[in-house]
Amino acid sequence: MRLAALLIALSAACAAHAQAPLPQSALDAAAQLRERALADDTGYRIIESLTTEVGPRLPGSEADARAVAWAEAKFAELGFDRVWTEPVTFPKWERRSERAAVLGAHAQPLLVTALGGSPGGTVEAEIVRFPDFAALDAAPESEVAGKIVFVDFRMRRSRDGAGYGEAGPVRGRGPSVAARKGAAGFLMRSIGTSAHRVANTGLTRFEDGVAPIPAAATSLPDADQLGRLLERGPVRVRLELDCGWNGEYTSHNVIGELRGREAPDEIVVIAGHLDSWDLGTGAVDDASGVGITMAAGRLVSQLPQRPRRTLRVIAFANEEQGLIGARQYAERHAGALAGHVVGAESDFGAGRIYAFNTSARSASHALSAQIAQVLAPLGIEFAPDRGGPGPDIGPLAQRGMAWAWLGQDGTGYFDLHHNADDTLDKVDPEAVRQNVAAYAVFAYLAAEAEGGFAPAGGAD
Amino acid sequence: MRLAALLIALSAACAAHAQAPLPQSALDAAAQLRERALADDTGYRIIESLTTEVGPRLPGSEADARAVAWAEAKFAELGFDRVWTEPVTFPKWERRSERAAVLGAHAQPLLVTALGGSPGGTVEAEIVRFPDFAALDAAPESEVAGKIVFVDFRMRRSRDGAGYGEAGPVRGRGPSVAARKGAAGFLMRSIGTSAHRVANTGLTRFEDGVAPIPAAATSLPDADQLGRLLERGPVRVRLELDCGWNGEYTSHNVIGELRGREAPDEIVVIAGHLDSWDLGTGAVDDASGVGITMAAGRLVSQLPQRPRRTLRVIAFANEEQGLIGARQYAERHAGALAGHVVGAESDFGAGRIYAFNTSARSASHALSAQIAQVLAPLGIEFAPDRGGPGPDIGPLAQRGMAWAWLGQDGTGYFDLHHNADDTLDKVDPEAVRQNVAAYAVFAYLAAEAEGGFAPAGGAD
Repeated sequence: MRLAALLIALSAACAAHAQAPLPQSALDAAAQLRERALADDTGYRIIESLTTEVGPRLPGSEADARAVAWAEAKFAELGFDRVWTEPVTFPKWERRSERAAVLGAHAQPLLVTALGGSPGGTVEAEIVRFPDFAALDAAPESEVAGKIVFVDFRMRRSRDGAGYGEAGPVRGRGPSVAARKGAAGFLMRSIGTSAHRVANTGLTRFEDGVAPIPAAATSLPDADQLGRLLERGPVRVRLELDCGWNGEYTSHNVIGELRGREAPDEIVVIAGHLDSWDLGTGAVDDASGVGITMAAGRLVSQLPQRPRRTLRVIAFANEEQGLIGARQYAERHAGALAGHVVGAESDFGAGRIYAFNTSARSASHALSAQIAQVLAPLGIEFAPDRGGPGPDIGPLAQRGMAWAWLGQDGTGYFDLHHNADDTLDKVDPEAVRQNVAAYAVFAYLAAEAEGGFAPAGGAD
Repeated sequence: MRLAALLIALSAACAAHAQAPLPQSALDAAAQLRERALADDTGYRIIESLTTEVGPRLPGSEADARAVAWAEAKFAELGFDRVWTEPVTFPKWERRSERAAVLGAHAQPLLVTALGGSPGGTVEAEIVRFPDFAALDAAPESEVAGKIVFVDFRMRRSRDGAGYGEAGPVRGRGPSVAARKGAAGFLMRSIGTSAHRVANTGLTRFEDGVAPIPAAATSLPDADQLGRLLERGPVRVRLELDCGWNGEYTSHNVIGELRGREAPDEIVVIAGHLDSWDLGTGAVDDASGVGITMAAGRLVSQLPQRPRRTLRVIAFANEEQGLIGARQYAERHAGALAGHVVGAESDFGAGRIYAFNTSARSASHALSAQIAQVLAPLGIEFAPDRGGPGPDIGPLAQRGMAWAWLGQDGTGYFDLHHNADDTLDKVDPEAVRQNVAAYAVFAYLAAEAEGGFAPAGGAD
């Protein structure tokens, strides 16, 4: 009888366990962690430190090395068990100067910024306007040859950043397509939503076999002005860029780790990227991600004991020019990727998190649902079948690692993204605390759980 | 009996007239004018034309001459009776390039713009911060000599622009005081309220006997950054300005006139200034004033007959570097100033007008009160004992001409004033219509009245 009772009890416990991969004690600890995070400004202080002491961190610049040293020192100061760097090598692109002007009867300066990857050069030509990438792509060479292409696509403001995806081809492919059709230069309305005189940079990549042409973005008010000038007749523009690729550089991913108490080879990754574009101080892109994830790790480190699994906080090198740090991490750790349980990156600014999901494809995924339950008091909804891996989690997710998504409100993100206004004053300390709380809860529970998440691309 | 009745009636009419300088028919006509103005976009279209076709209009630049030609053509196109220019000569200041950076362990670029009147030069020195002009003024030479002075005064946002007056000495006198104490350079938090990466220029004037030093303003986010860096230790800055005075230039005041049907030598002046700083396109400062007053004149010109008095719309040259067009107008017309009945300038942006007053010192001034009555439906309150002459009306008011004040809401003005964000997209067409309506009402009634206004500086 006593044995039978024990077997029944055991079986019930197992059933409960199958439905609830985390014990109530872990959920309680996570809830406490969440409340501590909401009263802690470590995240904001890290963002302040990086943006003030290092400032802009263009990959390959002098500040890149200072940022790596800063991150190593910061992880150590925050009490991580192990801090190390891993080399990341890439071609170096430099911005030296940039200037543009409308010529002729309505002569006036134009505010521009070179796209990352643009060659230098001075071109003077009439502009030919296209409302979007498709129109440029469809245009005959005769319309484009010898001209400065001007793509005047207006990015849509949205909470989830959908407008960025829609605008993407303008910057990514526009210069190549223009160059292939014989354009002398490329100018675009910034991919951005700011009404101010700030132009948004970002990478373009010239396709093989295309001779690169000077490529730049102009602010929204300047793009409006070009539109008005075009209503009056042909518009001739001079574009003077001094920039370009210049050799190779080796930077570093910087990693801080809390070693798991039971399963140290099972790894939960939370990440941001250490590099930034050079026009602002990279406060929302992505000192915020670095600060949020470092601070979340710090909070987990202050618990009475380490979580079951290892927690790895990564500050990736050179995200901006092609996820280079993340790709090289995925290659370097290819043999250990099966041990990477799940990863999440904070790289969508400093807005509040409103939604959570993982690569598990359904609300029935018990572990995700349990984590979501502790996130709910932060105003975060469980959003099965939405979201995706952050940029630097992509290369790992492509190799099968599960991802988690802590979806930030990006309504104002593209007012700042890749332009000069990306500075500390735009970061709301209260929103940062909410982000840190969410990352701490997620990281702790993912590292404390026994079960896994559905791998990226896998079935639930 | 009939004679007695006539005499009584006449006397009553005279008494009424003494209290009410304008007949009801004029007030009715003004009310109709007001409603027509509210349905007319001429003002906005003029602003669009000037900012688009000429763009920035730095005094003495190539665009200065284009602006003068534009204004002559625009007055003629709008149907003014007489259009002419009057030469205005001044020293020419040029901005060629500007750059600044924090040096050393926290090296990073600083966004700056040279103050008008600054000499060129490259200086590298430690910065010494003062919270306001008084602190700099009180500082011993030993604290300042060899350093780059950094005045970190925060301008207050206000509807009536009071914060601008409070901040004025920082830019106007700061560089001189710093230079006299042996400073190597001068840097200031912009006089402005914008949270964006825009720096505000504006004139500084080096006092006699002081050797000028490079002087620039930085954006508010950059000033914040300097403050944070100073918390960490000494901050060394390099300031590289290529700018300075370069010879003399002759521009022109441009005047469009509607000739008075009865008293053509009595003149009502409404004005804006044609020049602008070079960082934006001078949309709110002061294409708006030019557009508002030109459009008001145009509406008055469309009445069945000219007003009793002459209405003169003036687009002044070079307001920005010391009211130079206005001063030279006052000198040139010194002999005819007694005939200048009253003047008003629109030079505080494109915000809605909320208050009206004249140099008449009391609410009992009958003419002002009558005009105020027609302005009231525009949301404009009669504000006796408030306001003052617009900048370019100042030199005329100093010589005794009466002034009128159509007080604009300047809450957002210093987000744009003298910086790169002063572009057309910041101008609200509806607010412009309200401004045009107010100027048309004022100009028409002042020109139709028989009585005058209390002269500036005089008793009521």
